[in-house]
Amino acid sequence: MPRIQSIQEYMSAADWDILMVQTRPNVFYLTGFDADPHERLLGALVFKNGGTAVVCPSMEVHQIEEVFTDGPVIGYTDSEDPWVKIGEYLQEASIPTRKIALESSISWARLEKWKETVPQAEFAQADALLLEQRLIKEPDELQLMQEAAAFADIGIKTGIAHLKEGVTEMEVVAAVEFEMKRRGIREMSFSTMVLFGEKGGDPHGNPGSRTLQKGDSVLFDLGVIWQGYASDITRTVFFDHATEKQRTVYNTVLEAQEAALSLVKPGTAAGNLDKAAREVIEQAGFGSFFPHRIGHGIGIEVHELPSMNEENTRILEEGMAFTIEPGIYLPGQFGVRIEDDLHVTAEGSRILTTYPKELQVIPSEK
Amino acid sequence: MPRIQSIQEYMSAADWDILMVQTRPNVFYLTGFDADPHERLLGALVFKNGGTAVVCPSMEVHQIEEVFTDGPVIGYTDSEDPWVKIGEYLQEASIPTRKIALESSISWARLEKWKETVPQAEFAQADALLLEQRLIKEPDELQLMQEAAAFADIGIKTGIAHLKEGVTEMEVVAAVEFEMKRRGIREMSFSTMVLFGEKGGDPHGNPGSRTLQKGDSVLFDLGVIWQGYASDITRTVFFDHATEKQRTVYNTVLEAQEAALSLVKPGTAAGNLDKAAREVIEQAGFGSFFPHRIGHGIGIEVHELPSMNEENTRILEEGMAFTIEPGIYLPGQFGVRIEDDLHVTAEGSRILTTYPKELQVIPSEK
Repeated sequence: MPRIQSIQEYMSAADWDILMVQTRPNVFYLTGFDADPHERLLGALVFKNGGTAVVCPSMEVHQIEEVFTDGPVIGYTDSEDPWVKIGEYLQEASIPTRKIALESSISWARLEKWKETVPQAEFAQADALLLEQRLIKEPDELQLMQEAAAFADIGIKTGIAHLKEGVTEMEVVAAVEFEMKRRGIREMSFSTMVLFGEKGGDPHGNPGSRTLQKGDSVLFDLGVIWQGYASDITRTVFFDHATEKQRTVYNTVLEAQEAALSLVKPGTAAGNLDKAAREVIEQAGFGSFFPHRIGHGIGIEVHELPSMNEENTRILEEGMAFTIEPGIYLPGQFGVRIEDDLHVTAEGSRILTTYPKELQVIPSEK
Repeated sequence: MPRIQSIQEYMSAADWDILMVQTRPNVFYLTGFDADPHERLLGALVFKNGGTAVVCPSMEVHQIEEVFTDGPVIGYTDSEDPWVKIGEYLQEASIPTRKIALESSISWARLEKWKETVPQAEFAQADALLLEQRLIKEPDELQLMQEAAAFADIGIKTGIAHLKEGVTEMEVVAAVEFEMKRRGIREMSFSTMVLFGEKGGDPHGNPGSRTLQKGDSVLFDLGVIWQGYASDITRTVFFDHATEKQRTVYNTVLEAQEAALSLVKPGTAAGNLDKAAREVIEQAGFGSFFPHRIGHGIGIEVHELPSMNEENTRILEEGMAFTIEPGIYLPGQFGVRIEDDLHVTAEGSRILTTYPKELQVIPSEK
C-alpha cells in the first residue's frame, strides 16, 4: 500500500521504530477496515523496518483478514490483555522498540499500558504525520467524497419534500434518515439537524417537537458516511413566505459564502476565506451573529484538518477538502446557514454538494 | 445535586483538589447537559472545597446555562485556548491545584495541556470513582432506562413487521430507525443490526443488500438513546419456516439465557451468569460457537460496568443494570442471539426489554 510506504519513509526520517494508531479513522485509513470496537482496542501497527500488523478483538479477526492482508492479525479474547499479545509479537518478530509514535488522542490509560509493555521506550506524538498525510486527498478518496456529497444533496431534497404545515422537526429528520438508510447508508456523519423558525436562531439547536408554521425558516444540516467518507451540507429555506428581514439575512449569508468560495485555489491562506465571508457579514451589520469559523476540513472524519478559522495561515493545496459554511443566527427569531463541501483543484475548486442555493420559498399548498 | 456532594466527599477522602471530566457520558452525568462537542473540549470541574464549573465552546454557553446552574459556565471561542481560560479561573477563584483527578480516557494531548497549565500538580485517575458512582443506578435513571427499553421493544416489533421475501437487511434497518425517529428518538445507541441467514453466523456481521429468503434466520440487535440513557435488545426469528437445527440452536440459546437470568440477585458473583449460560451451550455441543461474554453493563453508555465476563468476581448489588445476551454463531449457516436489559432489585431482577422470546416463525404470506 503506497500510504504505508510513505509512512515508513517518514518513520525512518523521524527515527520511530513503531507507529501505532487506534482511532477508528486512522485504523480505517491504514487498513481499509472500518468498525467501532467500542471500548476494546483495535490498533494498526506500522514498523519502520518493514511490515505492519493489526491487533483486535478475536471476534473481529475474520472480518479484518478479508480486507487487511499486509501482515498478521493478532486477536485477543475478552479475558486476554491485548498489550501482552502486542508485547509477545514484538519480541517474537524481533521488532525494535526504542521509539514508539502514538496518536496524541490515545488515552492516558493506553499510554500507561504501552509504558508497562516496553518500559525503556521513548514516546512521540504521530498526529502531524497522520493529519498531514490525510490532509491531501487521493483521487479515489475524492471520488468517494463526491458520492457522499450526492447523498447529502438527496437528503436536503427529501427534507424539503416533507415540509408541510404542522409537521415536527423530528418527523422531517426521520424522513431524511429513512431515505438515506433505504439507499444503503449505514451511518449519518452526525445527528441530522432540522430547525424551524426561532429554533434555527441558536447555532447549535436540536430538533424536537416544534411544528412548522407559515413564515418559518427551515435550516437543514446533515451528512452521511459513505464507504468510510463523510459529507456535510446545510441549506436554509422558507416556508410559505419570507419576510424582508429573512431575505436580507439569507442573501447576506449567500454573498458571504460566495466571497469565500471565490478565493479557493492553491496558494490562498486558509484564514482568508473566513475573513472574506466575515467582512460581508460585518458590513451588512450582522457581525456579532456569526459566532463560528467559516468551516472545517472533511474526509474520513466530518471534522478534520484544515481548520478554516480566521487565524489559520496554512496555504491551500490541491487535494485539500473542507466545508464553507457562514451563518447568521438571530436569537429568538431565525437562523440562516449555507454550507458546501469542496476540494481544492489545480486551478481553483470543485464543489461537491450541489443542491441549489438561491433563496427558496416552499409553497404551503402543493 | 446529591451526586456532586457524594463526589466531593470521595474527593476529600482521596485528597483530590479538582476533578475534571470531559467525556460525554460523565459530563452528562454531572451536569445534565448532553451534547457531542466533537474535537472541542467540553469539561465539567468539581472542586473539593465546594463548587463546580463547566468549560465549553462559547456557542454552547447559552444551552448549558439552561440546565447547569451550579456554577460558572466558562466559554471559549475557536481562536482561544480553553486551558488558558481554565488556568485563569482557577487562579481567580483561588482553587488549590495540588492534586487533580482526570478520566484515564483523557487524551495524552489533554493530559499534557493540564501539565502545562498547572506544572506543579500531581495527577490521579478518577475512573474508579466515576464508574462506581454510575454503576448503581438511581430510581430516576432506571425509569429512563425502562422507557429506552420500551422503544427497543417497538424497534423489534417494527423490524419484524417489515419482513417479507426479497426485502434487504438495510431496508429493514431503515424502517426500524424511521419508526424510532418518528417517535422522537434522536440517536440509536449503536448502528442497528439486521442480519439474514448466514450473515448472522458472524457475531459482528454488518447489514447490507442481502435479501430475505424463506428459511432464513433474522437477527435484530438495536437500541436507542432516550433522555441520555441507552437500551440494547437482540431477538432472532425465522422466516417462513425453521429447520430442526435452527430450532435446536434457538432453544439452546434461550435456555442459556434463562439459566443466567435465574441467577440475578444481590449477592451473586457477576461471572457466575456467564458460567451458567456457557455451561448450557457447552453441554449442547456448541461451546466453541459462543465467542463473547454474556453481557455488559448499560446506562448512560451502551457499554459500561459491570463487564459480565466469566472472570468477573464482582458481587451484584441492587441498582446495577446490564445485558444478558448469549449467542451461537454457525459460520456460513446462521446465528442466534437473545439479549435483554435488566437491573438488579432487592429480591432478584427486573427485565426492562419485554419483547417475547419463544421461538417465532414469521409467515411469508400475510
